[in-house]
Amino acid sequence: MADYTFFTNPMSRGQIARWALHEAGVSYDQVLVDWAAKPAALLAANPMGKVPTLIHHSENGDKVVTECAAICAYLAEAHPEAGLGPSADESADYFRWQFFAAGPVEQAIVSRSFGWEVPADREGMAGWGSYERTIGALEGHFEGNNYVCGNRFTLADVYVGSQIDWGLTFGSIPPNEAFVAYAERLQARPAYKAAKAIDNALIEESRK
Amino acid sequence: MADYTFFTNPMSRGQIARWALHEAGVSYDQVLVDWAAKPAALLAANPMGKVPTLIHHSENGDKVVTECAAICAYLAEAHPEAGLGPSADESADYFRWQFFAAGPVEQAIVSRSFGWEVPADREGMAGWGSYERTIGALEGHFEGNNYVCGNRFTLADVYVGSQIDWGLTFGSIPPNEAFVAYAERLQARPAYKAAKAIDNALIEESRK
Repeated sequence: MADYTFFTNPMSRGQIARWALHEAGVSYDQVLVDWAAKPAALLAANPMGKVPTLIHHSENGDKVVTECAAICAYLAEAHPEAGLGPSADESADYFRWQFFAAGPVEQAIVSRSFGWEVPADREGMAGWGSYERTIGALEGHFEGNNYVCGNRFTLADVYVGSQIDWGLTFGSIPPNEAFVAYAERLQARPAYKAAKAIDNALIEESRK
Repeated sequence: MADYTFFTNPMSRGQIARWALHEAGVSYDQVLVDWAAKPAALLAANPMGKVPTLIHHSENGDKVVTECAAICAYLAEAHPEAGLGPSADESADYFRWQFFAAGPVEQAIVSRSFGWEVPADREGMAGWGSYERTIGALEGHFEGNNYVCGNRFTLADVYVGSQIDWGLTFGSIPPNEAFVAYAERLQARPAYKAAKAIDNALIEESRK
């Protein structure tokens, strides 16, 4: 049995988790999930039935991880031999930008995409402030740093970078120089290419 | 100089970070932030000017952390002597529910509060699915566990628990038994009481 069971669908955020699995260099069995008929094993692990859902068959039993950012953080911690978690000096940036991407950036992009406007008298409740301020803060980081943690790639880049990479593809992130250059650095990684090749082949297959 | 500089406002999510600082048992200098006149030191650390913003004056220089969940994760990692980070067996739950609270739960609560409806043809983009499914998944966890990581309190409970505690107070989380019992366990903690007493006194003071 592989170390991990990975429930995914090639046309989903499961692409982020697959890239993370390849970066961590772990073995996994993939279970492709059809939205209309979700496997019982997936629903047992994650009642919401969301993909990606990852089960780590660890020495001390099965561990379930959901949420793409959590999958990246978990793999970094569970596999120190991969060297993709933060050093003590890197962990402030590591957690700051991972949660910034999972919270404010995600909310800013989704709200704008759906045409939702924050009521003027309740801005304090909207942790992302505004789309422009949120994207501006993210851009400011990558104007001065090649990666989430300065000049070293970590698994935080898989999550934060995927938000930017997808955002550039779908037009929800502006094609500013710092974002484009960062995405190109990520796209050049062997694990990125290997993971995307699998999902792209699955997507092709499903269209036949 | 204290180990940390803590930019906050008593009527903000800064309350979450203060509770985390007290749980971690670290020393901090507080800088109260007036929305209308943000200190230059805050804007230098965090151009968005959001509170809470935390600066760790570490051996290797200043580290800036923003986002409440990231502040909890950072303090757990930077202060292993506090024993409030996850063991290897706990890190799946630790990261899963912390990111679940920072992403889906936050989005579900804010969207519902603002009266926003996900367009029916674009549900795949809404990672939280629906308010009911998101809150149901969270409730399911606390029906079977006293804390984020089984029966042991960690700094993940400061963030996840604050979402639930605030949600119960403001009516954005339903007063279901598992949520109420969890909030009561948290409210009984000395660090929770100490931190809230400071913020409540500051709020009283500001009303005079």
